[in-house]
This record gives sequence, structure tokens and C-alpha cells, in this order.
Amino acid sequence: MMNKDSLTHHISQQFNAELEEVRSHLLAMGGLVEKQVNDAVTSLIEADSGLAQQVREIDDQINQMERNIDEECVRILARRQPAASDLRLIISISKSVIDLERIGDEATKIAKRAILLTEEGEAPRGYVEVRHIGDQVRKMVQEALDAFARFDAELALSVAQYDKTVDREYKTALRELVTYMMEDPRSISRVLNVIWALRSLERIGDHARNIAELVIYLVRGTDVKHIGLTRMQEEVQGGSKD
Amino acid sequence: MMNKDSLTHHISQQFNAELEEVRSHLLAMGGLVEKQVNDAVTSLIEADSGLAQQVREIDDQINQMERNIDEECVRILARRQPAASDLRLIISISKSVIDLERIGDEATKIAKRAILLTEEGEAPRGYVEVRHIGDQVRKMVQEALDAFARFDAELALSVAQYDKTVDREYKTALRELVTYMMEDPRSISRVLNVIWALRSLERIGDHARNIAELVIYLVRGTDVKHIGLTRMQEEVQGGSKD
Repeated sequence: MMNKDSLTHHISQQFNAELEEVRSHLLAMGGLVEKQVNDAVTSLIEADSGLAQQVREIDDQINQMERNIDEECVRILARRQPAASDLRLIISISKSVIDLERIGDEATKIAKRAILLTEEGEAPRGYVEVRHIGDQVRKMVQEALDAFARFDAELALSVAQYDKTVDREYKTALRELVTYMMEDPRSISRVLNVIWALRSLERIGDHARNIAELVIYLVRGTDVKHIGLTRMQEEVQGGSKD
Repeated sequence: MMNKDSLTHHISQQFNAELEEVRSHLLAMGGLVEKQVNDAVTSLIEADSGLAQQVREIDDQINQMERNIDEECVRILARRQPAASDLRLIISISKSVIDLERIGDEATKIAKRAILLTEEGEAPRGYVEVRHIGDQVRKMVQEALDAFARFDAELALSVAQYDKTVDREYKTALRELVTYMMEDPRSISRVLNVIWALRSLERIGDHARNIAELVIYLVRGTDVKHIGLTRMQEEVQGGSKD
């Protein structure tokens, strides 16, 4: 028979295993979403409608992962009544999963644009920008997830900071494409497909930033949403909490 | 002195008051966000840059409300360890608040477009569509919040169903505006401002639908995300849970 101490120990081991499991599910979902972003961008640039179709089909799987992780989080909240850093872990996971699912949605939208472009013929401009900004936001997603895996607030901070660069490059690309459309109105519909894809990439950057902010909340215990990059940096480079 | 029963009763009264309070804060935030959507649309249609500026300034207040409600939810989770429908209430609130904040963001984006349009001169087309879709999504936000206030899953279902209509009308409006731009390339930049505003309105509809889905989860105990409208209707028109 177990005495009380070993029972407590046993429960806490099981609890830790559950936390570890839900975290690993989040990271697995993140890995799949990251691949979706990559494949969506490739399908657009290489006019590969087969690959674009695959991206669209895998979206269901991502949605299912979201539902499962959500259920795990609710179960842990109801049964384990976590506190302090355990509670922050569950909150960060249940919010990150929303952002990951939206990244999957945006990847699916890019894949739809890729399919439209194979139908309407390729756009005269914008592919360089899609590749470039696509690489940037994929890296943001990857690093936000790495930061989650390693509880690395510094890395998360750098992801949040990088979002500004992406926003700036997105705006520059947009201005150039609008100018191009004015010069060649027959290309409007095709160029707009590229613009919508760029818009989705910019949104993916925003979601990666949200995940990064949740990592900072998880590690440092401070909500850094909407406080601006300067104060965010101070929070990260200050101390840590429990 | 209180005996144990009256203490339990006292605690549960206080707990109910806390739940009621955080729910009322969510609804207050919702009311402000609804007004933001209305003012943003009006500022664009009436070329009122003063009103647009107000919309942008109030965004900070909405962000602050999000932070406060988030904090309340975490505090309740940590101290009260809610279960069953109380837990679902906290989860629904802490997720709805994310959607409300994003609706506020989209309203701010519309206000930015309104300001650009007062600078560049008004667009030759699209105002009728902005007014029309603007009215539709504002009604969606309003009804999603009413459904939250009254725990009304049927009303929430109708909001989720209505999102399809908005998406269809958005696509029709977009097609017409693209055709117009091809005929009059000098209008591209101005028409694009209207297109971005319409896009934001369509996103607001998506967020209202998300909130409606959370109301169904709250009232019926079932996660109805991604299950499609037919199954969602079955869930709502089936039974209710605790």
C-alpha cells in the first residue's frame, strides 16, 4: 500500500506527465502548421496546384488537433486545478493553439490563391516578395515554437521584435504592386491574388508574435500584450517569476 | 460566528458575484467594440476624419479592457478552481475577449482607411457595400453579445449561420470592385482602401461567429468549432448540459 506521501508524489508525477503531454501535442501541431506555411508558399511560387490541394486537405487535421488540445486543457483545468506556473502553462497552450489554427487558416488561403493563379496564369510580379516574406514569417513561427519548447523568453522577444520588419517589408511590397497594377490594369486580378497571399503572410507574422508574447507570459509571469516593444524588452530582461 | 454551511454559502455567493462581474465586464467591452465598428463605418462613409481619429484613440481603452478581463479570469481560475459550467463560463469569456479585441483592431484598420480616403479623395465605388456589410456584421456582433448575455444558444446559432451570407456578399462586392478598377486604373489606390475596409468587415463577421460558437459551447457544453453548420444546428437543437 502507498502512504500519503508517495500518493501525493504519484499524483504530481502523473500531473507533470499530463502537462508534458499537452505541451508536446502543441509542439506537434506547431510543426505541422509550420510545414503548411512552407508548402503553401512553395505551391504559389512553383504554381503547384497538387501541393496547394494537399495544404487545403491537411487543414482538417490541424482543426482536429486544436479541438483535442483544447479538450486536454479543459480536462486538466477541471481535474488538476493547476496554480502558478502550471496554470500559466495551460493558459499559454490554450491560447497558442488558437493562433496556430489561424496560421493554418492563412496557409490554406495562400494555397487557394496558388490554385487561382494556376488557373488565371501567373502574376507578372510579386513572387520574390512572397518568397522573401514567406521565409521571414516561417522563421518567426519556427522560433516562436522553439521558444515555447525551451521556455526561452529572450528568443520570444526577438520574434516579437522581428514582426516590425515583416510589417515594413509587407507595406513596401504592397506599394510596389499597386503601382504595377496601375501601369498594367489587365494584370489586376492576378496581382491581387499575390497581394492576398502577402496579406496572409503578414497575418501569420502577427500570430507568431502572439505566440511569442504568450511564451513571455509563461516564462516571466507578465502579460506583455499591447505594452509596446520597449516595455516588453524591459520585462524580459528583468527577473523571472516562480 | 458563521458555521461551516453559512461559510460555504458565503463563499459561493462571493464566487457567483465574481463570475457575474467578469461577465458584465465582457459585455461592457463588447458594447464599446460594437460602437467602434459603427463609428469606423460611419467615418469611412461620411469621410469624417475626426471620428476616424476617435476610433483609433479608443483602441487603447479596448486593449486595456482585454488585459483586465484576462487578469480576472486567471485570478478566478487560480483561486476558485471552477468546474463544469462555471469553468466553461471562464473559458468562453477568456476566449471571447480575444475576438472582441481583434474586432476592435479591425475597426481601427477601417478608421485608418477612412483617413487615407479623406486624404486621397473619395473612392468612385463601394460605399453602398461598406454600409450594407457594415450593418450586417455590426448586427452579428450585437447578437453574439446578446446571446452571451442571455445564454441563448439558438440566437448564437443564427449568428453563426448568418456569417455565410456575409461571406457571399463580401465576395460579390469584391468582384465588382475588381472589375471597376480594371475599367478605371486611376482609381486603384482609392478603391483598394474600400476593399481593405470590406475585408476588415468580413473578418469582424468571422470573429462574431467565433463568439457565437463560444456561447454554444458555454450553454450546451459542446465544442462546435469546425464541425459545420448542419452538425452545429443538431447540437444546439438537441438537449442542454448541466
